[in-house]
Amino acid sequence: MDDRPECIDEHLLFGGRQCRFRHRSASTGGLMTYSLFVPPADRHAAPPHVVFWLSGLTCSDENFSQKSGAQRLAAELNLLLVMPDTSPRGEGVPDDAAYDLGQGAGFYVNATREPWAGHFRMFDYVADELPALVRRQFAVSSRQSIMGHSMGGHGALMLALRFPGRFSSVSAFAPIVNPAQVPWGRKAFSEYLGDDEQAWLEYDSCHLLAGDEARRLPMLIDQGDGDQFLATQLQPAKLAEAARRNSWPLTLRIQPGYDHSYFFIASFIEDHLRFHAEHLNG
Amino acid sequence: MDDRPECIDEHLLFGGRQCRFRHRSASTGGLMTYSLFVPPADRHAAPPHVVFWLSGLTCSDENFSQKSGAQRLAAELNLLLVMPDTSPRGEGVPDDAAYDLGQGAGFYVNATREPWAGHFRMFDYVADELPALVRRQFAVSSRQSIMGHSMGGHGALMLALRFPGRFSSVSAFAPIVNPAQVPWGRKAFSEYLGDDEQAWLEYDSCHLLAGDEARRLPMLIDQGDGDQFLATQLQPAKLAEAARRNSWPLTLRIQPGYDHSYFFIASFIEDHLRFHAEHLNG
Repeated sequence: MDDRPECIDEHLLFGGRQCRFRHRSASTGGLMTYSLFVPPADRHAAPPHVVFWLSGLTCSDENFSQKSGAQRLAAELNLLLVMPDTSPRGEGVPDDAAYDLGQGAGFYVNATREPWAGHFRMFDYVADELPALVRRQFAVSSRQSIMGHSMGGHGALMLALRFPGRFSSVSAFAPIVNPAQVPWGRKAFSEYLGDDEQAWLEYDSCHLLAGDEARRLPMLIDQGDGDQFLATQLQPAKLAEAARRNSWPLTLRIQPGYDHSYFFIASFIEDHLRFHAEHLNG
Repeated sequence: MDDRPECIDEHLLFGGRQCRFRHRSASTGGLMTYSLFVPPADRHAAPPHVVFWLSGLTCSDENFSQKSGAQRLAAELNLLLVMPDTSPRGEGVPDDAAYDLGQGAGFYVNATREPWAGHFRMFDYVADELPALVRRQFAVSSRQSIMGHSMGGHGALMLALRFPGRFSSVSAFAPIVNPAQVPWGRKAFSEYLGDDEQAWLEYDSCHLLAGDEARRLPMLIDQGDGDQFLATQLQPAKLAEAARRNSWPLTLRIQPGYDHSYFFIASFIEDHLRFHAEHLNG
């Protein structure tokens, strides 16, 4: 099986390259698409650090690519951005009519329950397969950070807490911090992982952050107080309280009037990229 | 008939407001949608200047809103951005199966030929109706500038050349400068305006710029040399040559490697907004 990524789209952008790749994934047993921004090599002496972006429900690899404006700063700060899809897709991949389950809603877990178990292994894909693939494709530094939005904010926080040694920093916009306790997460986890809620906890950031084994890393969260999902699905105060109890370096910023959209992300992505660059270069 | 615009979407963005409005248009005889970015009032003492953005084929009012990143600079420079749709739409509005005719392809002309004549009056809409509407909605300065992309670059240049006294400056990305002579323009003009090519010339920037009646205004054009439409549809050198002959202050920049996409626009929109702000404030 040839897993070499095929370039399916490429554009010059802020002097760097915005690319889309498709490849056959061992983790998900099918074709996966991801986007990449490669900063301009001629402006920087050192190889770029890698920053992963994980998107939210219904998104593909293109939402952040097109709407965040992140590449302007990534070009300046010499960051290579990696933007995976939110699930496997296509024929032969199970799906559900709801927007919050199946294709576009992988939740960054390894599903253990049918019909999802074969393909929905986004945890392995994002934690291991994709980072290794990018390192084979591009000459990058050994350091990386991770960030995401909503379901992808859950993914970023959860992966950073599972593997703190792998990431210099983590940040999130309006993340699902306690998926084991909110409707989006409980629905997805019961479908993907089954009814044993104990098995859910290894994917729950509030649980992971509270645990002894959690290792500290710099963490930034932005949350709009005009976000329609704040009270029911997001509840970042739960994570902030767990961080406070454990003397964690979590910065939670409540942004007055901002909602759940990419307009919110665009407004603050510069702060996140500067935060990651500071810790990647520190 | 109530022509008061109805707000159908609103987001906080860079401290300003990104809004979508729908209203009944006298020019096009139906519902029209436009987007607006209102810069943050608390950061600026003076009312904002107005900058119009005209989009290209297949676009709506949302492409530039979501993909350009322009609002970051508009917030800083105190510019109110107005982003109209590219045609009337919906039931009762004529259309064509091709992407370059009918809905999404108004070409900023007043159609005189059936079935288009009743609705396709984007020239009147963008030149008169929409500016007056925005001035009724918001407290803005009396100065305005205009810019656009591809078909919308044609629209911006053509409107600025028709009404140079109304605009402080004009700019375009990959504009159709000579629609009377290239396939996109010839197809649209023959459909909307009929076979009398003399009638086309009042919508042709190369013709208008060469004429005695044209009044000088500052003009900036960016064109990627990796643009697939450069040789067949765009040909900005024709406008540059006409400008040179008339000692016009046209700046045409050829950007190596850039294509026709919004990634190109995002890469250089900051220069365009600073160019407009300089002339609006000058």
